[in-house]
Amino acid sequence: MSEALAHVEEVELSGHIIDSLLLPKVLDEILTRGGSFVIKDIQIGSRQSDPSHARIEVRATTAEQLHEILGEIHDHGAVPVNPSDCKTAPADLGGCFPENFYATTNFRTQVRLRGEWIEVEDQEMDCGVIIDPEGAAARCIPMTSVRNGDRIVVGHDGVRVFPSEVQSRQNLFEFMASPVSSEKPKGVTVREIAAAMKRTRAAGEKILAVLGPAVVHTGAGELVGRLIKAGYINVLFAGNALATHDIEQALYGTSLGVSMDRGLPADEGHEHHLRAINTIRRLGGIGKAVEKGVLKSGIMYECVKNKVPFVLAGSIRDDGPLPEVITDILVAQAEMRKHIPGVGFALMVATMLHSIATGNLLPGWVKVACVDINPSTVTKLMDRGSVQTVGVVSDAEPLLRGLVQELLG
Amino acid sequence: MSEALAHVEEVELSGHIIDSLLLPKVLDEILTRGGSFVIKDIQIGSRQSDPSHARIEVRATTAEQLHEILGEIHDHGAVPVNPSDCKTAPADLGGCFPENFYATTNFRTQVRLRGEWIEVEDQEMDCGVIIDPEGAAARCIPMTSVRNGDRIVVGHDGVRVFPSEVQSRQNLFEFMASPVSSEKPKGVTVREIAAAMKRTRAAGEKILAVLGPAVVHTGAGELVGRLIKAGYINVLFAGNALATHDIEQALYGTSLGVSMDRGLPADEGHEHHLRAINTIRRLGGIGKAVEKGVLKSGIMYECVKNKVPFVLAGSIRDDGPLPEVITDILVAQAEMRKHIPGVGFALMVATMLHSIATGNLLPGWVKVACVDINPSTVTKLMDRGSVQTVGVVSDAEPLLRGLVQELLG
Amino acid sequence: MSEALAHVEEVELSGHIIDSLLLPKVLDEILTRGGSFVIKDIQIGSRQSDPSHARIEVRATTAEQLHEILGEIHDHGAVPVNPSDCKTAPADLGGCFPENFYATTNFRTQVRLRGEWIEVEDQEMDCGVIIDPEGAAARCIPMTSVRNGDRIVVGHDGVRVFPSEVQSRQNLFEFMASPVSSEKPKGVTVREIAAAMKRTRAAGEKILAVLGPAVVHTGAGELVGRLIKAGYINVLFAGNALATHDIEQALYGTSLGVSMDRGLPADEGHEHHLRAINTIRRLGGIGKAVEKGVLKSGIMYECVKNKVPFVLAGSIRDDGPLPEVITDILVAQAEMRKHIPGVGFALMVATMLHSIATGNLLPGWVKVACVDINPSTVTKLMDRGSVQTVGVVSDAEPLLRGLVQELLG
Amino acid sequence: MSEALAHVEEVELSGHIIDSLLLPKVLDEILTRGGSFVIKDIQIGSRQSDPSHARIEVRATTAEQLHEILGEIHDHGAVPVNPSDCKTAPADLGGCFPENFYATTNFRTQVRLRGEWIEVEDQEMDCGVIIDPEGAAARCIPMTSVRNGDRIVVGHDGVRVFPSEVQSRQNLFEFMASPVSSEKPKGVTVREIAAAMKRTRAAGEKILAVLGPAVVHTGAGELVGRLIKAGYINVLFAGNALATHDIEQALYGTSLGVSMDRGLPADEGHEHHLRAINTIRRLGGIGKAVEKGVLKSGIMYECVKNKVPFVLAGSIRDDGPLPEVITDILVAQAEMRKHIPGVGFALMVATMLHSIATGNLLPGWVKVACVDINPSTVTKLMDRGSVQTVGVVSDAEPLLRGLVQELLG
Repeated sequence: MSEALAHVEEVELSGHIIDSLLLPKVLDEILTRGGSFVIKDIQIGSRQSDPSHARIEVRATTAEQLHEILGEIHDHGAVPVNPSDCKTAPADLGGCFPENFYATTNFRTQVRLRGEWIEVEDQEMDCGVIIDPEGAAARCIPMTSVRNGDRIVVGHDGVRVFPSEVQSRQNLFEFMASPVSSEKPKGVTVREIAAAMKRTRAAGEKILAVLGPAVVHTGAGELVGRLIKAGYINVLFAGNALATHDIEQALYGTSLGVSMDRGLPADEGHEHHLRAINTIRRLGGIGKAVEKGVLKSGIMYECVKNKVPFVLAGSIRDDGPLPEVITDILVAQAEMRKHIPGVGFALMVATMLHSIATGNLLPGWVKVACVDINPSTVTKLMDRGSVQTVGVVSDAEPLLRGLVQELLG
Repeated sequence: MSEALAHVEEVELSGHIIDSLLLPKVLDEILTRGGSFVIKDIQIGSRQSDPSHARIEVRATTAEQLHEILGEIHDHGAVPVNPSDCKTAPADLGGCFPENFYATTNFRTQVRLRGEWIEVEDQEMDCGVIIDPEGAAARCIPMTSVRNGDRIVVGHDGVRVFPSEVQSRQNLFEFMASPVSSEKPKGVTVREIAAAMKRTRAAGEKILAVLGPAVVHTGAGELVGRLIKAGYINVLFAGNALATHDIEQALYGTSLGVSMDRGLPADEGHEHHLRAINTIRRLGGIGKAVEKGVLKSGIMYECVKNKVPFVLAGSIRDDGPLPEVITDILVAQAEMRKHIPGVGFALMVATMLHSIATGNLLPGWVKVACVDINPSTVTKLMDRGSVQTVGVVSDAEPLLRGLVQELLG
Repeated sequence: MSEALAHVEEVELSGHIIDSLLLPKVLDEILTRGGSFVIKDIQIGSRQSDPSHARIEVRATTAEQLHEILGEIHDHGAVPVNPSDCKTAPADLGGCFPENFYATTNFRTQVRLRGEWIEVEDQEMDCGVIIDPEGAAARCIPMTSVRNGDRIVVGHDGVRVFPSEVQSRQNLFEFMASPVSSEKPKGVTVREIAAAMKRTRAAGEKILAVLGPAVVHTGAGELVGRLIKAGYINVLFAGNALATHDIEQALYGTSLGVSMDRGLPADEGHEHHLRAINTIRRLGGIGKAVEKGVLKSGIMYECVKNKVPFVLAGSIRDDGPLPEVITDILVAQAEMRKHIPGVGFALMVATMLHSIATGNLLPGWVKVACVDINPSTVTKLMDRGSVQTVGVVSDAEPLLRGLVQELLG
Repeated sequence: MSEALAHVEEVELSGHIIDSLLLPKVLDEILTRGGSFVIKDIQIGSRQSDPSHARIEVRATTAEQLHEILGEIHDHGAVPVNPSDCKTAPADLGGCFPENFYATTNFRTQVRLRGEWIEVEDQEMDCGVIIDPEGAAARCIPMTSVRNGDRIVVGHDGVRVFPSEVQSRQNLFEFMASPVSSEKPKGVTVREIAAAMKRTRAAGEKILAVLGPAVVHTGAGELVGRLIKAGYINVLFAGNALATHDIEQALYGTSLGVSMDRGLPADEGHEHHLRAINTIRRLGGIGKAVEKGVLKSGIMYECVKNKVPFVLAGSIRDDGPLPEVITDILVAQAEMRKHIPGVGFALMVATMLHSIATGNLLPGWVKVACVDINPSTVTKLMDRGSVQTVGVVSDAEPLLRGLVQELLG
């Protein structure tokens, strides 16, 4: 061994490291950061279901470089062969992590406590990991929830992630994941989404819908209502706009002032959304409006009637907003987090803001189909780490129409 | 009148000059070019169907400026009150217009010959007008078709156009024309296109389909086949790619190598399109392949079976191409021109190249629905003068599926 | 006059009603709603600067129809010839308007009080109009700010709007306003924006910048910093993401983990934004971080150093957020409203959310340039009523580079 | 070994099979096609420059399946351990390949003749391979060029491809290749393109520019002219539109009728392009127009003056066209092919048609930068096999301005 590469650590990598491309990524990272490697042992599974295993000696010229490399490949699942317990530091300031906190991914993660690997709960990207006072459990915690004295994991020691479990092939679904293109057979896409929704329901998991107002503008509100009634949407994340235009349509037959029957701008239609909000505010909320018989159709009506919980998160472009809209975004995030456990599939349609917000909260093993007519929405969602996403570049109404036909006949 | 504006001409403007915005455009042009105007007389129809009429005195500081202004407002239908006969010059070079040739719009146009207004035939934008040797008829002629000695109209004298007839409201269809947005009720759009197609067929006019390969890639080939069989497509303009991928799907079940059933890249699928072309070339063409029972389904098959004429125009990105593809683009344009007369409606889906090419050839009174998932395709078509176009930002397969359901149940 | 059209009201329309297309729109609305009209008098200005005037008799079959038509054309500036005072009703519920409230546009508006036309202050779309207790002043008020007993304008009587003043030509700037296309000469666009910024500064008005994180991702942070230093940005609206990635770049040299120097994903770079937020939170905020010498460059640094006020509005996709981010969106809107008075020009770059939010707050006479690589952002902004917007389909960094060169040499 | 997988062949894979992801792809293909594998030997290079090597036993249940799998992995560079000579068949029909022809990729390819591996010349995707009559040389041949009796390679035996040589890292350039996003640091992108152009020139290779008309519309014509003059563009591929609008700008100062100085639609400007074409046709061509002093600036002028060869390929949307435009697309392709040898770098700006056409012709080792404001252009280029492409989602004029500054100061 040359002097130049005298800092060495041996790491392991297991799982679907070939077909999920983890091994190439790890080797590439080592080389890119100026390190070197020797593959000490490699066993490649001969069938798709067989895991592979590699033991790699990482070499670097300085301790800092080695530390850097190990930190980087850690997120791809490479862990030291001889692990130590995870290290923690007490939070010294409320709402802040201590220096050198471990920043989470959305992959399944374990921390080592007293020689044992413990599952991290509430997996979510861009959080820290808090160890409970007894030191027997760990969970992800967002920065703002940290209280003075909380015991927070620092560094990468004693932490391991399992990215390969996200990306190995469980079903046909992931075929579309790679390139974001509108030129795909749409019938297949619709069948795959339908199949994923059926599987999710059969598994007793929840289907989360994340919807933007274009769902209503393009005329798909009634289709979403049918999915809710049929039990194919079990929780809804949206904003003031989706709910407002849905209610506007129920009360006035327009969306953003455009008649849904004739496609023409309606009489004084641009005011309808504002009058719809005012009407609901006067009645005390969406639930009250349903109760009093004023709101009699639409997505929000079906949510209320079918007891499908919804979180309406506020945004600065909101008019009104409707009484159920949560205007503080930290409160809205907290409310969204409550509904994440048990979600097995997320269908996101026509909303970049809410899709990325939800993608931030979902663990990496929850499959996501993100439908948008604009390819950049899907690209951005993936760029921000929601790699489990299937991007579908298509139009909200016609695609949902196909989905309803596939699911409900 | 000041010295500064001593050059004066009186023009008239008739038709739907208010709701088609011609009057504001004309006044705006006059002012923008530095001229001035006095409205001598204005009669505005009190009902939608009533034409309006305006007589405007145009003033300019120089004769050149006046000439410029008159040239510009001429395309908006403003003609001198006291017209003279049109002027012509003999073509001095084959394939070229004489200097100062009159350049056509796609609006209905008349030329004045021996004191009478004569209809210009074969109306098409960016052409010249040729007067027949007897001086009794006029028609549009493309530059390359000009022969030495042809009598070509020069200048604007004795030429008048009728833009307002294109743009007045005949039906609900035009509601969507203005802003190019994906946020429109898609059910209405589909119903309007279906209604336009029914009206066109009922009127004994032809429906022209202009299709790009994404029609096949997204899985809509079978839907288009059903429209052909049902008589809703009477002539097809496309390129080598549409026909090749359609035939690839018929022969191999893939499009660009992607399985249409499973959505997965097929075995050696990237070669399928090339093998499909080779197979058809070996058989002597698409017609022969149908005859010999090799080609048994798809868009091209249905065209052959239902005697729907098609023009496959070549492009430099073509592989092969298929034997029926016309590789010389001037020959292809000439062939396309032959099929334009009698077209009452054009449905363009997922092709910028062929849509703009066809838009160049269509007279302004033929309604066009241009469906593309990319808003810029529609914007470009309109920017290039095809103002009769309804832009529909949507996905090929789901939209065509809705259209087939609307038309064929 | 036929029985069928026995309900009549005479309205007036003044200003640039031809070149701003108000007259055609009004006539079209009357016909579209099933009414009829007689133009009693029309005077069209013969120069661009001359206002025109039209007196129109509107006829309808029922009183309701007439009311509908008058309501619709009212927003285009058509007011009854014989006006009455505006009508008001007391707010009967806090946070709600009374039934039949007058919904504002973003055009200059007046209300008639005791026979006199009074200017409405704080003009903003989608608000109500509150009359002060003395009945001597009127201003726009958002729904949530209404308190029980407030005197709110109802109906259209005694209210008039001046849309034509927004749209008449003041300068070359508006040439680009109409079609949203990327195919425009970009040098001209940059010169026009620069000219508008110079004019605004010369007029003693404020320039508002509304920026999305792609400004930083594309590498334009330093360019924006130069505009701030030179006094060309006087107030900044943005979100947590812009500020975070700007600070990430200042602290780590990356944006979203991508090195700004080499374009390569940096070592553990995906965590940088989170560590940047944590660092600033630990220091107590952006201002503190500048003060303590930790934050030494970038957009936020220049804002602090140059005392340029900024509003960072929260959104549900935020990590952290930074301490200065206002997490309640109603509080954020209120804070943004405080900075609107005095704004003469708004430059919006690469953010749909904040652009639409700001467009909602700006009066119609404040010129806006909205730069986005995605044409749909601009289309949406215009669809939502911000008609004074010039859409520029271009890339953030290169366009800002050109703008800095034009302004600062 | 089970009965079920009794068909076995051993293949080898060499080169940068880890960092170019060839090994994972090959294993994945085997499993996807229902086969199985045993990795007999694997040596992974410990440095970036070290090649790796793998020997893999492929197993299948039927001979057909084995054949299919071998065909598929062949394109990823996997070749049988014990190769035979390539097989050929005589072309039985002019313009067609024989059945079972070998379809080329754009990767470096060799065929085995009399026990020796021979380089295939004129490498191009979607062609066949012709063996010269003496059997000593091989080259790619497009379908239409085949003559009766030509000796064409059939099947995969004795053919090997080297995909890894395309994708291994030679320089920083390829960092951008993967995700097509507008959110990248643009300064870095510009520097990298500039560096690639400098390297190409220094290596004595040619730089090919492929340009669409938006280059002129956005005002970048003069910038391209400077690159030509400075020797940074050595051959130009474009269409009639680019040349026409370039000449329109030179003659009238407009592009598509829009003034390049003021951004306003010019007087009768929509006719300018047609008059420009007519003028050039009357003069006998672009070269003649330069010679006679009529054409005095612009891209085409600089090409003529600097003896930079250009190929103007016709398309069916062409007006005119200009005399130099090749209207037959097969002739145009042939002409383009003549200029490919020696090209070391291709800069494609704002043209999907010509970019894909050129991508079809380029060997896989020629680096390509494809600049388009529309991400789908880049996505399509890559989907169609031009994997060596760096996609740059940006605006033509500002990006070229930056490039000129980087190259020419």
